[in-house]
Amino acid sequence: MNKDVKVVDVGPRDGFQSVKEFIPTETKIEIIEGIIAAGVKKIQITSFVSPKAIPQMRDAAEVVAAIMSKHPGFEAFALVPNFRGAEGAVNAGLKEVSHVMSLSVTHNMNNVKKTHQQSLDEIKRIVDTYPDLKLSEDIATTFGCPFEGDEPTDALIDLIGKIKDIGVKEFTLCDTVGLAYPTMIEEKFKAAKAAFPDLIFNAHIHDTRNMGILNTYVALQCGAASVQTALAGLGGCPFAPGASGNTSTEDLVYMLNKSGYNTGIDFAKLLKTAKYAKSVINGNFSGHHINIEEHPCVVTQA
Amino acid sequence: MNKDVKVVDVGPRDGFQSVKEFIPTETKIEIIEGIIAAGVKKIQITSFVSPKAIPQMRDAAEVVAAIMSKHPGFEAFALVPNFRGAEGAVNAGLKEVSHVMSLSVTHNMNNVKKTHQQSLDEIKRIVDTYPDLKLSEDIATTFGCPFEGDEPTDALIDLIGKIKDIGVKEFTLCDTVGLAYPTMIEEKFKAAKAAFPDLIFNAHIHDTRNMGILNTYVALQCGAASVQTALAGLGGCPFAPGASGNTSTEDLVYMLNKSGYNTGIDFAKLLKTAKYAKSVINGNFSGHHINIEEHPCVVTQA
Repeated sequence: MNKDVKVVDVGPRDGFQSVKEFIPTETKIEIIEGIIAAGVKKIQITSFVSPKAIPQMRDAAEVVAAIMSKHPGFEAFALVPNFRGAEGAVNAGLKEVSHVMSLSVTHNMNNVKKTHQQSLDEIKRIVDTYPDLKLSEDIATTFGCPFEGDEPTDALIDLIGKIKDIGVKEFTLCDTVGLAYPTMIEEKFKAAKAAFPDLIFNAHIHDTRNMGILNTYVALQCGAASVQTALAGLGGCPFAPGASGNTSTEDLVYMLNKSGYNTGIDFAKLLKTAKYAKSVINGNFSGHHINIEEHPCVVTQA
Repeated sequence: MNKDVKVVDVGPRDGFQSVKEFIPTETKIEIIEGIIAAGVKKIQITSFVSPKAIPQMRDAAEVVAAIMSKHPGFEAFALVPNFRGAEGAVNAGLKEVSHVMSLSVTHNMNNVKKTHQQSLDEIKRIVDTYPDLKLSEDIATTFGCPFEGDEPTDALIDLIGKIKDIGVKEFTLCDTVGLAYPTMIEEKFKAAKAAFPDLIFNAHIHDTRNMGILNTYVALQCGAASVQTALAGLGGCPFAPGASGNTSTEDLVYMLNKSGYNTGIDFAKLLKTAKYAKSVINGNFSGHHINIEEHPCVVTQA
């Protein structure tokens, strides 16, 4: 009685962007191909953002070109914060993007330098200009904001409604700074699905407070269509040393594969790529399996 | 509709024993008192084991004497691997111990140098000699063994039955090396509770594979009477660098306090003690909150 589950790796975007030192484009491509080879069906391979704001992503077009030419049918997508980003993604050859805006007005201003209305205008311009582009919307700070704290569920429903009216059908509820907990996950997913039964809702969970695997598990039980994680748990915030990024893809896949879910992903292959990533990238890795050595441990006593 | 939950800190045993450098007895006492002050109702404060095998625990009697004299009514207990350990605990003034044996025959031989029958004989001798001593049994490797792999549920039920027949009423199902996953937690707890509805079952979970918080959450949903964690996530295996020990008490408490459980524990106070422990002990800490700094993080983008 295995349940199919779609695990989406966003490490090449959310993970790589946290690394200060530029990761060579060939390394990025190699790691993305390792994730594909392990059986992951969808990957956020880069973002089209200002190279001044995030220099790590300055090779977005090259990464897209390489992956799309080698894996033409693969579900690769990029994050974009505005119309210009979507334009770059389309020009590079992508068929899908996720636009991001924050439920928190303050966070949206800090993150993408826009008011809510300005972000909504960007979405409309993308939809109008690229009717064939698959577009999903990331709602950052759905589960809380470092500036504003908890965000009301009513405001979430209101914002989703406005974006739906522009024509967007798929949403990702993002726990941007790892503030979600099980009952909050349940509240937001239930409210969103009740208000918009025809829309698709995904979960994007950070492991900052050690609830990444639990919250992702709860999101799946609440009907999340897909869950987003990052290879090796690469990520974190440059202003909070030690704080983790996304949930580790391979840690989640191990749990799901064992617990009656069908991910279609080969854990051992994925772990090999995760360990490789750790060996070549100077970053903050929160995954657990990458640190487990194989010899047995007998002195734990209980 | 808060549900009461008993969180038992085993850090002063399972955490401290993982530290090579001797932790001064006063430091141990100070940390235990910090945990008590935060509202934790029960603590495994030490173990009575061979000082040759685990030199870190050689001050067990001193720790017990200090805590019992300062906090006479407090539920402090120690782990013991045999009759001699129980004798030491009683002589030091403890009213409760947890005896440990492994479901895995190989692990039991490696961990406490005894066959199953020899361990059962030790339990009987403890029960016969100290009828007023509160005794619970830790079943190590319930969820898998580094030598034998998965352990059959039938064997677990059989072993619990034998120990129950000696007179033990409380058991802790231990995920000694972090091999449990949600459906396995459900299977073992359901089977144990169905076979022995009058016995008490607790959960002792390690976070080795990043499922510590999730597995503990699932164990509570399966009716675990209490859950065991270690302050700051101190622990791990000296043979597996980076491998985590028990689930972090403060990380679990944060999640539970937020998610409709009533732990009776003050998270902020507990975190302060966890950060203090990290600052004075040279060990392997897997807790997340101890690494989070307070200033906001705005460049995560989703």
